[in-house]
This record gives sequence, C-alpha cells and structure tokens, in this order.
Amino acid sequence: MPSVEIVAIGTELLLGQLVDTNTPHIASSLAAAGLDVYATHAAGDNRERIAAAMRAALQRADGVITSGGLGPTVDDLTKEAACDALGVQLEMHEPSLAAMKERFASLGFEMRENNVKQALMPRGAFVLPNPHGSAPGYIAVGRDGKFIASMPGVPREMKPMLADSVIPWLRQRFVLGAAIYTRILHTAGIAESEIDHRIDDLFRAMENPKIGVLAHDFRCDVKIMAKAQSQEEAQRLIAPVEHEIVKRLGGHIYGVDDLTLPGAVHVLLQRMHHTVAVAESCTGGRVAAALTSVPGSSQSFLGGVVAYDNSVKTRTLGVREQTLQRFGAVSEETALEMARGVRERLGTDYGISTTGVAGPSGGTPEKPVGLVWFAVCGNGVEKTLQRTMPPGDRDSIQARATVAALTLLWKQLSR
Amino acid sequence: MPSVEIVAIGTELLLGQLVDTNTPHIASSLAAAGLDVYATHAAGDNRERIAAAMRAALQRADGVITSGGLGPTVDDLTKEAACDALGVQLEMHEPSLAAMKERFASLGFEMRENNVKQALMPRGAFVLPNPHGSAPGYIAVGRDGKFIASMPGVPREMKPMLADSVIPWLRQRFVLGAAIYTRILHTAGIAESEIDHRIDDLFRAMENPKIGVLAHDFRCDVKIMAKAQSQEEAQRLIAPVEHEIVKRLGGHIYGVDDLTLPGAVHVLLQRMHHTVAVAESCTGGRVAAALTSVPGSSQSFLGGVVAYDNSVKTRTLGVREQTLQRFGAVSEETALEMARGVRERLGTDYGISTTGVAGPSGGTPEKPVGLVWFAVCGNGVEKTLQRTMPPGDRDSIQARATVAALTLLWKQLSR
Repeated sequence: MPSVEIVAIGTELLLGQLVDTNTPHIASSLAAAGLDVYATHAAGDNRERIAAAMRAALQRADGVITSGGLGPTVDDLTKEAACDALGVQLEMHEPSLAAMKERFASLGFEMRENNVKQALMPRGAFVLPNPHGSAPGYIAVGRDGKFIASMPGVPREMKPMLADSVIPWLRQRFVLGAAIYTRILHTAGIAESEIDHRIDDLFRAMENPKIGVLAHDFRCDVKIMAKAQSQEEAQRLIAPVEHEIVKRLGGHIYGVDDLTLPGAVHVLLQRMHHTVAVAESCTGGRVAAALTSVPGSSQSFLGGVVAYDNSVKTRTLGVREQTLQRFGAVSEETALEMARGVRERLGTDYGISTTGVAGPSGGTPEKPVGLVWFAVCGNGVEKTLQRTMPPGDRDSIQARATVAALTLLWKQLSR
Repeated sequence: MPSVEIVAIGTELLLGQLVDTNTPHIASSLAAAGLDVYATHAAGDNRERIAAAMRAALQRADGVITSGGLGPTVDDLTKEAACDALGVQLEMHEPSLAAMKERFASLGFEMRENNVKQALMPRGAFVLPNPHGSAPGYIAVGRDGKFIASMPGVPREMKPMLADSVIPWLRQRFVLGAAIYTRILHTAGIAESEIDHRIDDLFRAMENPKIGVLAHDFRCDVKIMAKAQSQEEAQRLIAPVEHEIVKRLGGHIYGVDDLTLPGAVHVLLQRMHHTVAVAESCTGGRVAAALTSVPGSSQSFLGGVVAYDNSVKTRTLGVREQTLQRFGAVSEETALEMARGVRERLGTDYGISTTGVAGPSGGTPEKPVGLVWFAVCGNGVEKTLQRTMPPGDRDSIQARATVAALTLLWKQLSR
C-alpha cells in the first residue's frame, strides 16, 4: 500500500490556538482511498522547519500532503519550503494568474500585489484549481518520484480540492487497490466494558474485517473495518460479522453509520405517526435541542418546557406543590408528574422528563451532584429511571443526562 | 527559550477517526508557560514508529511530550517506545502498583492482569500520579539530559496531569523566563470586518503585545498576547492596549477571558436581581441550554418553552391564532407575542423569543431558509430583530440564531 504523511502548516497550530480538523479529514479520506498514513505533523510558518518536516516525511513515505500556508501574506511559506525540499524553483504559473485576475474582477474586488504570489508555483507542478478561494493547490513530483501535494488551510476550500483533485490524482498514480470500508454500529444503554465482554473473542480473532469499539459522547460505537478491492467485496466481508455483533448486542444497537440517537428516535416516532414532548429541568433544553437538531423533526417533536424553577414545574407542567414539598424537585415522583404534565398539556403521544443536580453546587449527601431522575410515559406505559452520573463538570453531567434521556425514550419506542 | 515537540499517539488519529484536541491544549499550556513548541506529530500504535518519532523530536528539541498509549492493552506501547528511544529498561514501579490495587478495590472492581502493565515504568522515571484514572504518567530523562513526558490520552486525565505535574516540573527544570500571557476580549454583535477596520492600525503596529482577531462560534474575540517575565509585567504591557481597544469597540465587548456570552447575560441579570424566560421555535431549546450551561443560572433563569409546533405557540404561550394566520409563525408579530407570552406565563422580568426557518426544507421565496425573527421584552421596552443567517446547514443556522438571541438579550440588559 502506498504511504503518505500529512503536514499541517501554521504557527497557530503550535500555539494551540486552533484545533486541526483538516488532518483527520485528510487522513480518513486517504484511508478510504486505500493509502496508508504513516504519521502526521504540524509545522509553524517557518520556511526551514516546513522544508525539514517535508524532507523527513519524504524519506519515510511515498508522498506528503500539506494543508495551509498558501495564502498571500509573507507568513505563507509552504510553496517556498516545498521547492527547497524538492530542489526546484518557484515560477509564475500564468494560467493561475489569469484565473485569479478574472475571479477578482467578477467579485468586484481589486487584486492586490501580494495576491500575485498565490500564482507562483513549483516548476513543473500540476496545479489544482480552487473554485472556492483564491489560492490554487498543486502537486509537485521530485526526481525520486516522491510527491508533495499542497492544499489551502481553509476547510471549505481544502475539502473539495482533496476529493476532486488530490484523491483522483493518487488513484491514477498508484492504481490503488484495497481500500478501507467502514461500517459503524451505534449502541445506546450498554457500557463499553459490557460490549467488550460480549464481543471480545471477535475483537481478538478478526483480522479483516477488524473490529474496534469507540466510546464517545457517552455512548459507544462498534466499528467494522474491511480492507477490500471494492464496495461489494467489503460488503461481503462485513455482513456476516455485522450479523454476529447485532446478535450479541441485541436490542442495544439503535442504528448504523450516519444515524444519530435523536435521529433514531424520530425514525421510530414517524414510523408510528406518534409525537413527543419534553419536560426538562437539569438538562435545561438540551434534550429538546438534540431532538430538533434532526431535519424534519417538527413532524414528531411538538415542543417542550424547560422547567428550571419550581414555579414553572407547577404552573406550566402541573406538578403538584405537595409532590415537590414531600419528595423534592429531584425525585421519581416529580419526574413522573413532569412527563405526564408535558404530554397532557402539549397533547402528544409521549412525554419525557429530566430532573437532577447538574452542579457544581446544590448537591446534598442524599442527592449528590450528578443524581438525575428520568421519566417517560405514553402508549399506556410509564417508566422511571434513576442514574448517578460519574464525577464531572456541569457540562459533562448535562451531556450525559441528555444521552440517558434520549436512550430511555428510544428504548421505550423500540420495545 | 527551551523547546519541545508534542507526539500524540494512537492509530485512530492516523485513520482520522478522532480529532486531536489534546495537542492544541498541551501546546497552548506550554506557550503560556514560556516554552517553544517546534512541531507536533501523531504516530500510530506501533512501537518502532513511536520510538522513531520520539528520537527525531529529541534531536531537534529539548524534550518530547506525549499523550496516549498508556492503557492496559497490547496496543498501548508508549512506554516501550520511550524506553527504546532513551535506551533504558521497563521495570515495575511498586508504589504505582500498590496505588492501582487500592484504586480498584475502592471502586469495587476486580483488577485484571493487563492492568499490571500500567504500573511498569521506564527505569529511573519520575512517576506522575493520575487521580482521575488508572494509568499514571511519567517523565523520563535520557543521558543527554533530554526528556520524554508521557500522559494518558483521555483529556480529563491528561489536563490535570499537565497542569499539576508536567508544567511545574518544567518550570523547575528550566527556570522558565518569558512566558506568553493572553488577554481575550469577547465581542458580540459586531462583524469581524468592522473590528478589523477599527483596530487595523494597532494590529499592524504592535509587536509586544501582539493583537489578533479570532472569529469563532459566530462571534469574534480580540486577543492581546504579551511576552513577559511575570504576570505583573504582562499586565503593564497589556493594560494600555486593552484600554485603547475597549475605547474603539465601545459597547460591543461583553467580557474578558473565561466569561461566556450566556455568563455575561447572567452577570447583568443577577446584578439587577432580574429574571428571564425563553420562548424558542427554530432554536429548539438551544438558547435555554446555553443559559443553563452557566453554574448558578437558576438564580436568574426560570425556564423556557420550546414552541416548535404552532399548537404549543397558542396553547402554552398564548400566541393568537389570528396572528399566526395573518403573519405566519415566522414573523415579527409572532416573535413578539411569544416573548410577551413566556414572560407573562412564567412570571419573569424579561422574555426573549426566536422563530425562523432552520432548514434544510421549509423555506419560501418570501421566507427563505435562514430567516429568523427575534423579540425581547421587559423593563418597559419591547424590541424585535430580523436576521437572515448566511447559507449553512441546520446546525450552523440554529447555532448562529442562538448567539444572535443571546446578543439581543445582552444588549438589552447592558443599555
């Protein structure tokens, strides 16, 4: 498999002022195309250091792919460094200069002198058009056949250039064979250790496809990664493994690939032509926000009440004063009356609620920070759930409680 | 200035399955402490390649800081690679083994055999405790005096270890001199180009402190970065520049450093002993979620209604049927009745509302995707605002509308 290294360029990366999302995007695109990424790097806006990073990478790999440093300012030095690394000269690329002039004229902007710099290219380079910005990219090949491909750092300029120019060029050059195809099974309501326990033998035994478990957003994904010559071959490799995993993880898989947990909730609601409303205390609107993040969610999500203050719980949701006094706002009884209240008052099929202690203050020995009660009602069933979130800040407690609420609703709908 | 390089370890980084947020966090902490980050890298779970990356980095810099690869599995190879790079042996670190046993016992978990691996350390290494997980970190120093500091990859374990162990160790070892101190001025309701226009001359003229404008989350920050020997010296350098920028950006600066926009809203509300309630349509709970992300927000945020369906707008908020029929759900009139309704029904001093077309469908020539109406009322004033969000997906339109709603409320409160 041909190998490449990725170099992200920009001093802001070394100062930690920017999270580099270009490198993971390039890496996953290359893996999907069947290239092996050996290592990735970030270098500052310094000609010698960029050139040194390129040279070192070219010793190990077949090529280097860079993002950033193609702009018009004196700090933009990627092309100069690539020329140093490959031992060629920069020269004016007339078609790029003409295209740039045209672009500026059509936008009604004046082209400044420093923009001319963006049309300079390593001699002999294959120039990559940039329909989304002023800096073209390029692929330059050295005497040893190794290449440097450079793209702009702006993600919306880089991404189409990668997909439309760089990947097709790589496919031609290397007649790429096996690529990596990934199938993601999303789980909810099952711990990573329990997944490990159930599929550990597969995890150890399988080579192609490989299986991985990735915990994130307080849920776990199981990834099945097949190396194959085609989508069809990958499908043949993945299908039996997927079947086995689905069998073992039973009702805990809510969907595959791009489906989100709120998306899965909407799929079930829309299939049944049912609606839901949300009553939130400690999650403060996050469950509603998650449900309305899904396009078309207005078909099944009618609305919600953020009942932060107890007065809102009683007045807007109809929670009884005596329930609050006797059991407290963070209690099974209050959660249940909140879910019933929002369902009744908004006239939906289902109601779901959260009430808990998000912290950092407000905890007691009996009801510590992280304790949350949930309730769901509808379709003739009422269910409550108590969970104590592991230690964390307010944000992580609210985020975990939101996933737990969506999981409870999804489980109720998928019974 | 002493120099370091950062190596993030994990094959998932090379496959683009994970965005590396550890490296920017480590980089900015090192810059703040006065260290120069030469370059950053990511390496896969491969002993030879990790060791090669460490060796190469140690040739250029005074030390290497790694994150990841300290776990209990066979894929966790950071310590083995560090031993290869420094030419030392791994050996059992008894105090770490004892601490691990105790930790597992107190959590009621059984300690597995592979956890023992986590107590192996490079001979002579300075071991860094990990109060938030089972894998300790370490700092190992080679015969040439260059060091490798390794921390776990889990951010909530890595961050305290960096702040509490690694940075203090570096401060002792290098008697660090000039560090970079940063002051961030947060603006709202002013475009990046307008900020540029107003402070362009400062931006160009200043060397220490340097000024930068960073657009993110649909707001802009102005950063003032001073290189200084002490906090006091930095303060002397920053103060006059901050004063000048505040003068020029007038009422658009809502706060500094760690203060968020919802945080600034709460500061103003609490100062006046006032309360607010939110009525949301297109933002679907995000404004409430933002306001409740602030610790202690229950003092001034009483609650909200997510009135996604028109029935909720009429029933729960009291928007008139004829208003919806005559002007539509996305209109100035509906926004105003929503804000009034939520304020009245929840009994707060202020009410704020959003109603718009979040897309991707539902747009019309008259009311395109991205059109949002906002209203705020309270303290004897009613104000409405129409904004058309620039093209983007549902998430970015909802996020921008949320910032716009918070900005409207903040401006109203800060008048």
